[in-house]
Amino acid sequence: MRLANLPTPSLVLDRQRLDGNLRRMQARADALGVRLRPHLKTAKSADAAARAADLGARGITVSTLKEARYFLESGVTDILYGVGIVPARLDAAAALRADGANLAIVTDNLDVARAIAAHDGEFSVLVEIDTGARRAGIAPDDPVLVDIARAVQAAPRAQLAGVMTHAGHAAGPDGVRAIAAAERDGVVAAAGALRDAGFGCPMVSVGSTPTAMAVDHLAGVTEMRPGVYMFGDLDQQAIGSCGRDDIALSVLAAVIGHNRAAGTLLIDAGGLALSKDRSATEFRPEVGYGEVCDAETLEPLVGIYVADCHQEHGIVPVPDPRVYGRLPIGAKVRVLPNHACMTAAAWDSYAVVEGEAVVGRWPRVNGW
Amino acid sequence: MRLANLPTPSLVLDRQRLDGNLRRMQARADALGVRLRPHLKTAKSADAAARAADLGARGITVSTLKEARYFLESGVTDILYGVGIVPARLDAAAALRADGANLAIVTDNLDVARAIAAHDGEFSVLVEIDTGARRAGIAPDDPVLVDIARAVQAAPRAQLAGVMTHAGHAAGPDGVRAIAAAERDGVVAAAGALRDAGFGCPMVSVGSTPTAMAVDHLAGVTEMRPGVYMFGDLDQQAIGSCGRDDIALSVLAAVIGHNRAAGTLLIDAGGLALSKDRSATEFRPEVGYGEVCDAETLEPLVGIYVADCHQEHGIVPVPDPRVYGRLPIGAKVRVLPNHACMTAAAWDSYAVVEGEAVVGRWPRVNGW
Repeated sequence: MRLANLPTPSLVLDRQRLDGNLRRMQARADALGVRLRPHLKTAKSADAAARAADLGARGITVSTLKEARYFLESGVTDILYGVGIVPARLDAAAALRADGANLAIVTDNLDVARAIAAHDGEFSVLVEIDTGARRAGIAPDDPVLVDIARAVQAAPRAQLAGVMTHAGHAAGPDGVRAIAAAERDGVVAAAGALRDAGFGCPMVSVGSTPTAMAVDHLAGVTEMRPGVYMFGDLDQQAIGSCGRDDIALSVLAAVIGHNRAAGTLLIDAGGLALSKDRSATEFRPEVGYGEVCDAETLEPLVGIYVADCHQEHGIVPVPDPRVYGRLPIGAKVRVLPNHACMTAAAWDSYAVVEGEAVVGRWPRVNGW
Repeated sequence: MRLANLPTPSLVLDRQRLDGNLRRMQARADALGVRLRPHLKTAKSADAAARAADLGARGITVSTLKEARYFLESGVTDILYGVGIVPARLDAAAALRADGANLAIVTDNLDVARAIAAHDGEFSVLVEIDTGARRAGIAPDDPVLVDIARAVQAAPRAQLAGVMTHAGHAAGPDGVRAIAAAERDGVVAAAGALRDAGFGCPMVSVGSTPTAMAVDHLAGVTEMRPGVYMFGDLDQQAIGSCGRDDIALSVLAAVIGHNRAAGTLLIDAGGLALSKDRSATEFRPEVGYGEVCDAETLEPLVGIYVADCHQEHGIVPVPDPRVYGRLPIGAKVRVLPNHACMTAAAWDSYAVVEGEAVVGRWPRVNGW
């Protein structure tokens, strides 16, 4: 099968670019002296996880317990469930451990810690620290940190594994270095507070692709959990975490209309195929919902972006009417995604390519 | 099964509200003297299509040929594929007709019309008219309209079915009535141009939920193709196409965190479960990614919206700290969607409820 024979729209994953991204982040983790525990919320693929492990990654991070079950069934046992646990999910988490997963769960809440302690399952617990993202987590110096640790350690079958944070607010290229330092310093300070109070803290976990690429050192940290680095996207390019030629994910689409009166062309990748995420436009307003590229070479068709999306129509302003001749009805293009995690989520599987050869079909685990 | 026993997040469809929406649009079509051919791109559900047909709808509209195949297999034969056809899809379209579908296809392009004529399949063809949306379609007075008609009619096995348009640009409540009139007048003018040139034009098709609800008459039109009316959403409410209590779709979510330092709470419905669509914020900036409601009653929790989304976290600003007491960790809420078509797309099925009783599980057809 060739790229040209795929139906449109199709989600395409470039295996060589993926491999380059996996190797680069592994080298980064090795140089920083930390374990790489990739977040599989982006790829949601056992094949991608296996390739990362082949290249040195140890364990994974997931965003749902459905992912945890899927990856456990694929043979991955060391799993960090990165979203704050709630009591209603403790039975499912305990079942994963009973079935062989070395599952770590996360909380930032004393009531939840007490519920963990009161449950009869075995649990390994990380306390979530807010190092600036203001999403989840407690401040590194919040005294409840020690209260949570005490509640967990008092339970006969739960153990305190350490602390984790996610600096998901990583901003434009100028701000990332400072955010990365704050992410590290905050979680290391929290680990110190736990140790000062007499607790062990074997895991000190940070994680985001921008901070992983920007941080100057990770002294005191034991692991990193980046995710979107596997694929890259226009948002990561805008932040400076990857180059344009590192972006491994794209959507193959066909030109389905010429609206010369409006100065646009239409492609059959719209809001469902690309997602409505516009993260990258914070830094590069012109990229809209994705950059339109040559289908074979992935070279940009200069100045051509998906400016608007309807459900199954992508609307592409045409800067020069000669584009209509170059891209007649039926012509194929590939669209580099604004935010790979969201674009991939609409798809059940990847068409894996090497150049123009389709070399595999990798399934994804979606939903909840 | 009760609503309270569903896992979180879950996509919930209120059957009584759905029925009310189906009845209201059917009454509207009946009063306007046109056929209702609902667009199933929103619901993507054979059960929803069957219920609409029970109440008087005739035929359906779809946005992909995968949907067409799915609905044909469920027993629906009268299908309008509403996205401009490209030559690469003619084989699949012809196969649907060969398998019993009375499939109508759409084009606005003379080259495509010639490709249709040159194909050995049977086709029923609508010409798409741009009545102001500037997405696809030709202007009502564009002379290529007659050229396309001529190319189609010259083919031994293709027939010209008529004209269609979609005023998908329907704006806020003040603008919809004028847009609806322009949608009708444009497509009726195009039908007249075809008839003046000696062609039959049995189908004159308009369609969008806002214009269907706002138009004062549809003289000269034969059918309407609204879609999102089945579910309603905050965007349709903002436009004035439905009331808040008509919104039949919601996402059941659990509170998974309290970030008192940030003045927020977190729910386990984020960008994947809700979508990143923000259509409604054009008219109501405060609604963000969805309105947070009581899980049982769907009454609003006043002033509480999903202001930001990460992949699996919805971030809800808390206007009053007493909300933390009312919504402890694990508490359930339901989120009314910003744009129902996009929110539903992340899900394989609906949990269908009547009040707090879960009365069914309806599958969806997703992907391409």
